[in-house]
Amino acid sequence: MTVASDLAAWALGLRRDGLPDEVVAATRRHVLDGLGTAVAAARRGAAEPALSVAAGLGGPPQATLLGRGLKISAPAAALATGTLVHALDFDDTHAGGLVHATAVVLPALLAVGEEVGAAPDEALVAAVVGFEAVCRIAGAAPHAFHGRGVHATMACGVFSSALVSARLMGLDEVTTIDALGIAGSSAGGLLEFLATGSSTKQLHPGLASHAGILAARLAAAGADGPASVLEGERGLYAALAGGRADPALVTADLGARWETTHITLKPYPACQLMHAALDAGRQVLPVDPAAIAEVAVEVHPDSAAIVCTPDKTDPRTAYDAKFSLPWSLAALLIDGEVTADTYAPESLARPAVRALAARVRVTEVPDPRVAADAPSRVAVTLADGRTLAGHVDRSAGAALDAKLAGNVGGPAAAAALAAAVDALDLPSLITVADRLARRDA
Amino acid sequence: MTVASDLAAWALGLRRDGLPDEVVAATRRHVLDGLGTAVAAARRGAAEPALSVAAGLGGPPQATLLGRGLKISAPAAALATGTLVHALDFDDTHAGGLVHATAVVLPALLAVGEEVGAAPDEALVAAVVGFEAVCRIAGAAPHAFHGRGVHATMACGVFSSALVSARLMGLDEVTTIDALGIAGSSAGGLLEFLATGSSTKQLHPGLASHAGILAARLAAAGADGPASVLEGERGLYAALAGGRADPALVTADLGARWETTHITLKPYPACQLMHAALDAGRQVLPVDPAAIAEVAVEVHPDSAAIVCTPDKTDPRTAYDAKFSLPWSLAALLIDGEVTADTYAPESLARPAVRALAARVRVTEVPDPRVAADAPSRVAVTLADGRTLAGHVDRSAGAALDAKLAGNVGGPAAAAALAAAVDALDLPSLITVADRLARRDA
Repeated sequence: MTVASDLAAWALGLRRDGLPDEVVAATRRHVLDGLGTAVAAARRGAAEPALSVAAGLGGPPQATLLGRGLKISAPAAALATGTLVHALDFDDTHAGGLVHATAVVLPALLAVGEEVGAAPDEALVAAVVGFEAVCRIAGAAPHAFHGRGVHATMACGVFSSALVSARLMGLDEVTTIDALGIAGSSAGGLLEFLATGSSTKQLHPGLASHAGILAARLAAAGADGPASVLEGERGLYAALAGGRADPALVTADLGARWETTHITLKPYPACQLMHAALDAGRQVLPVDPAAIAEVAVEVHPDSAAIVCTPDKTDPRTAYDAKFSLPWSLAALLIDGEVTADTYAPESLARPAVRALAARVRVTEVPDPRVAADAPSRVAVTLADGRTLAGHVDRSAGAALDAKLAGNVGGPAAAAALAAAVDALDLPSLITVADRLARRDA
Repeated sequence: MTVASDLAAWALGLRRDGLPDEVVAATRRHVLDGLGTAVAAARRGAAEPALSVAAGLGGPPQATLLGRGLKISAPAAALATGTLVHALDFDDTHAGGLVHATAVVLPALLAVGEEVGAAPDEALVAAVVGFEAVCRIAGAAPHAFHGRGVHATMACGVFSSALVSARLMGLDEVTTIDALGIAGSSAGGLLEFLATGSSTKQLHPGLASHAGILAARLAAAGADGPASVLEGERGLYAALAGGRADPALVTADLGARWETTHITLKPYPACQLMHAALDAGRQVLPVDPAAIAEVAVEVHPDSAAIVCTPDKTDPRTAYDAKFSLPWSLAALLIDGEVTADTYAPESLARPAVRALAARVRVTEVPDPRVAADAPSRVAVTLADGRTLAGHVDRSAGAALDAKLAGNVGGPAAAAALAAAVDALDLPSLITVADRLARRDA
């Protein structure tokens, strides 16, 4: 037995009545939040290149291209959906694996689910299978992918996309293991955008979802893949995570421990690794920006390596700013909030935010917890010598209702989408999401 | 300036009259050999899963699905062609980079070339651009990808596929750099098939070609990618090659040194790393297999790590055998040749070959040259005490004429294909190759 074979056996054997209520609730929550972030991205035109490339791929009318009201091949639709869900960096996160789970589960769920006409219970189980797979595969190698320059969401997302597809397509166990083995050869996703502010990160969940569906189709068509794809000497962890992994964790306590319930909703459309600091920063509000002499912030070293590099204080692009804790914290202190508008071009151009970002001092504070789950402290020293301090033990996450309404165009739209997701009836929720995504197009 | 930007500037500026005659000749040779290996794979049904998945992707009728006489989207066609070229492991190799160059150049050349209606000179230049790119990107990190469990052909092939596409699509320099930056996020390809005998390796050039065309399309549609994708702190070499690379080599002497002329034709449909040993083994022929007591073979340590692992003496699959020097050498000594038939199921099942493979003793002999260019010595000790020895300084490669005729169904078919390639007229060479690929279907 291998990790992939154990995972496949569990994934194919899981039944609706084996799901605890809190897992079902978490699954509905993340599907709804993910649809909301996709709709928000579509309304802002944040993923146009992926949508137009997907439309150009065309193919048989299997799945809906969200925001275009067009049916194309399931892999092409998933390329677009994955990019849409992640395009604003506002979609959910699993702290242990530092992966954006819904961005690599929802695209295959919607595309293959629509293609095969999956019933609500089957869609629910497939989503759980995907969430558990990506969170566990990434969680078995905490920060190891990122430490090597690889985006865990894409590297691990190919497997969850393949597994969701295999389950929905009704593949048998041997074929599902082949699908996972094949998916591993599409594992990748460079973090080099951190150095240049380019937006490749948006594409990673789309590319992973597309590749995962292709892997399932290739396996179904007779291609085979290595069952030892995860733990093998030349497998995922060895090649892309420097071997810093405990593969046994992928399948430990399957069906007893549910990582799906440990996925959190993002309150800010920015890198998860600065959320605790932004939460702590909110505690000092309101503050007169003109009165601030200096800001001191404590962060986990793994976070600092990604969101506190010196080159980010003067962001060139939205992606630079979304990965700059000093700039984002400065924007929070000046604006009183961090929203999608925070990273709009006119906001990025403001000299006052850059000037305050230059006065943010970062201290790295080691913590045994993974970076996305670590505490943070913010201390603002005013010109008159007074100090305002905030502290959180961990990022609190978002309240779904307000976030969703903001993303999809108001409470009525949010209620319509929530009702469709509550039933997990794929045709109706796809219709509602597609309509909302086109509202302002 | 970055490596990608220098490479893009050169690739877009190259003109037909800047190509030395030997580069033009090498390009025609490799296009012809690649078409031959693709035709041979199609006639043997060696890439059926990729062909049927590509057919299922469908899309606008932009490019021919070889062997099916069907037109589908260019990326889907490239997925199939890349898999076809590489499916028998009989396509060419660049020893310095240990990459199968044509497998990741020809698919984009044919698919995008057909889509845009590229003229012969433009096709020729695009092919050279692709060959130089993949050989140089891999050659700047000799054995570093393979040492980390990553297949250099896929990891580097995404870039050449993107560059060939960008050139044929007429993208400008900034957009071409974005295409390379985006392509890097699809760099991957695990070598874990070495442990299990599965056939994912066949798919890698197809996946790379598909991803490269997508990257060019995404860039053309407005997505951006990091210009420092190769040499950056979280770029290709850092993330997938352990940083063991000299990025400056990618663009050193561009236009003066032509790696295209250093690609060699495979004489055997097996891993390039055993070719010198098979050449040396041929020198002791004919030999009575029943009289062989022991076989001693000297190989480069990097080759031994891949083709002489102990688990391969009893191959479970064709892929195990194609990566087993002891088994392949035993088959050569028994059969007098190594051809595609050597790796057919009935041949793999022979106990006599396994028994002789078990009597092959491997000695690792370090050599400053890269593994695919290193010498090998074979010494056969007979039961009567005599020794027969063979030695080659490096793998000699294949003569194209005989190989091509064997691959495409005889000298007349080979001549027809050669004439089409000589003109580099894409519509006619695609028509001829498609017809030959379907001859026995």
